[in-house]
Amino acid sequence: MSGIKKKKVVIIGSGFGGLRAAKKLAGSSLDVTVIDRNNYHLFQPLLYQVATAGIAPEEIAYPVRAILRNQANVRFKLADVKNVNLDQKRIQTDQGDLGYDYLILATGGVTNTFGIEGINRYGFGLKDIHEAVAIRSHLVKMFELAEQEEDEQKRRALLTFVVVGGGPTGVECSGAISELIRMAFPKDYQFNQPHKAQVILMEAGSRLLPALPENLADFTRQALEHKNVTIRLNSAVMDYTGSSVVLDQGDPIPCHTVIWAAGIQAAGIIERLPVPKGSLKRAKVQPTLQVKEHPEVFVIGDAAYLEGPDGKPYPMVAPVAMQQAICAAGNIRKIESGIEPEAFVYHDMGTMATIGRNQAVAVINGFKFKGFPAWVVWLAVHIMQLIGFRNRLVVMINWAWDYIFYDRAVRLIQKGCNIEGGIERH
Amino acid sequence: MSGIKKKKVVIIGSGFGGLRAAKKLAGSSLDVTVIDRNNYHLFQPLLYQVATAGIAPEEIAYPVRAILRNQANVRFKLADVKNVNLDQKRIQTDQGDLGYDYLILATGGVTNTFGIEGINRYGFGLKDIHEAVAIRSHLVKMFELAEQEEDEQKRRALLTFVVVGGGPTGVECSGAISELIRMAFPKDYQFNQPHKAQVILMEAGSRLLPALPENLADFTRQALEHKNVTIRLNSAVMDYTGSSVVLDQGDPIPCHTVIWAAGIQAAGIIERLPVPKGSLKRAKVQPTLQVKEHPEVFVIGDAAYLEGPDGKPYPMVAPVAMQQAICAAGNIRKIESGIEPEAFVYHDMGTMATIGRNQAVAVINGFKFKGFPAWVVWLAVHIMQLIGFRNRLVVMINWAWDYIFYDRAVRLIQKGCNIEGGIERH
Repeated sequence: MSGIKKKKVVIIGSGFGGLRAAKKLAGSSLDVTVIDRNNYHLFQPLLYQVATAGIAPEEIAYPVRAILRNQANVRFKLADVKNVNLDQKRIQTDQGDLGYDYLILATGGVTNTFGIEGINRYGFGLKDIHEAVAIRSHLVKMFELAEQEEDEQKRRALLTFVVVGGGPTGVECSGAISELIRMAFPKDYQFNQPHKAQVILMEAGSRLLPALPENLADFTRQALEHKNVTIRLNSAVMDYTGSSVVLDQGDPIPCHTVIWAAGIQAAGIIERLPVPKGSLKRAKVQPTLQVKEHPEVFVIGDAAYLEGPDGKPYPMVAPVAMQQAICAAGNIRKIESGIEPEAFVYHDMGTMATIGRNQAVAVINGFKFKGFPAWVVWLAVHIMQLIGFRNRLVVMINWAWDYIFYDRAVRLIQKGCNIEGGIERH
Repeated sequence: MSGIKKKKVVIIGSGFGGLRAAKKLAGSSLDVTVIDRNNYHLFQPLLYQVATAGIAPEEIAYPVRAILRNQANVRFKLADVKNVNLDQKRIQTDQGDLGYDYLILATGGVTNTFGIEGINRYGFGLKDIHEAVAIRSHLVKMFELAEQEEDEQKRRALLTFVVVGGGPTGVECSGAISELIRMAFPKDYQFNQPHKAQVILMEAGSRLLPALPENLADFTRQALEHKNVTIRLNSAVMDYTGSSVVLDQGDPIPCHTVIWAAGIQAAGIIERLPVPKGSLKRAKVQPTLQVKEHPEVFVIGDAAYLEGPDGKPYPMVAPVAMQQAICAAGNIRKIESGIEPEAFVYHDMGTMATIGRNQAVAVINGFKFKGFPAWVVWLAVHIMQLIGFRNRLVVMINWAWDYIFYDRAVRLIQKGCNIEGGIERH
């Protein structure tokens, strides 16, 4: 190998997919660079816990350099990727250009508001740390303003929290807000407003958690209603004025908080590439995860559109991204060894969603769990996956404390974060 | 008492002074309101640890409502105070007006740049959470940019960190930055830049730590130099362009980071009040902490100017604020009981400053400590004072971890915080 210039692999994105691919290429004879605009890996499944004051943002973010520390052939570059020139094999960033021999696009997903202008302007997404801290600050601020508001109707609007989207994020988020309001806040607000607060979960379809079996969705609905979450199925949000949510039918809902968990789409960089697109702005890839006209370019995770054996595209979830990362990295190694790349095969380990402090639903390897056992499984899976022992320890202390004392550690209103919402501003 | 309307005490500020006063008035027959623009109490002595990636901001901030939770006659109002009309006894805030019978101004201090325009625009202060997170993000970003910079001179400027002010904050901050660079970063940056980084502590006077005995200051200087901090005494900063620090003598220093710990002054609200002022924009008070023409108004802590028996004004430090809080609250109770208010007497318990992970200097009740014993004392005092057992636990885990592994948990570059500096923008 000596004397031959190492081939360059660039991985754009340090999410679940990008980092897994980097680890799979560690120790190879390839020169690997991971690029991300943030210097940390974000453990997105727990982002809703930051938004609902359960844990601090630092506990679910981990420096990429610390993760890749012992891998001599992998380096990290902090930069914002502006564009990729597929013909010239060059990447333009705000910190200069760089070339590649292989490219893995692991650029992930962003909030999809389906073009609803008012949601873009006033709604909260839940995709990055900044948004989660903004939601946390906003929720607490609504209670502080309500405490000072004497008009009953205005107070009610301040204390109405609308979550849009009946998938796992919407379920987790509405359940956690309800608990924050009903368990932690009554200790702090003398006038006992929390019973006047309402959490509304809106879903355009006819049921919650479409990826899970019907009976687990029913269980989830009942459990959320037991937590005083109002569930409105078959109810589509048409617009939001910042003080009122407009629906496809029925009266508008006066409120100052809309959290949008109703959809994601591939990040903008993919849209700008001259490659065929599937639904949700994702780049269509071959079964080997290669781009058709550019076999040196792989797309994985939320950025990729690939149909499974059932004819439906693989879902935009972390397990798909991680398995595709392993496949893409393996295929690069195969090509380098003169072996044909292999087609991606997805092993669906299951799906889960937590409903609150002691309830969840899960399907794992075909086994259904619900209630407390499912919550214990959820807890174990997520704590184990948290990167770094210290983070696990601190998150566990916070959770145990909240569990025992119904308290919330981090209900701080942080300045400098935009607490007025506005997905497009993030 | 029944039938008589309760008298209203308003306390502006939820720092060490304001909260101590509120606690002293708890259980009285007075109706107490604490106003602050933030919903948390900030444990300022550890702010430099947030700035140097030692702990998360959530660990040194604690919700005011949680602190005042069990005190029925004390309420909290989240609001930004715009002005106080002393004649009408009314406070204007961004959340409406309110009246008072007694007022305690515990509005604290802000960074004093002595009018140096470049420091206002590009420098970092270290007075609130937002600034500390901005410094943390900025420090890490400088290393990320240096890693990508090929020009040796430009890289050197990126890796030059100037701290201005030889008091405890400057000493603590420069020592902690030096450790962050020399202990934690070498693991992460392959090209081994950390040895090229330099920390410069500038002091306009002829020695460090003027509040401590000369021999402890000498010890501190040697300990910092041992940590590779360059100390420049008798050196005054005249201006800062964002890329170069201009001094009163000698060549300018090319650098992109200036942390200003060279002075504080009373917060702006005091300046706007029609009361006599002492140095550093502080309100002059009577020995009883009352304002001369308005005996119902008390000023405490960094906002107050009162000369001690030695003719010098009491220093702007937390112990003075807390003891004045007890005096002011006690005097309000005395006046209500028809007793003459008492003059403030300060019991100086001592001063301390940490120099790094196992060294500090302290004078406590006349006893001098230095090195490791002083650091243990410093640690014990600060951990005990942290509000909330959970916070103490989490901070202890982080410190123990850093101590053992030379690691830093939270070296994240957080978006949404202005990482370009600019004291006046905060």
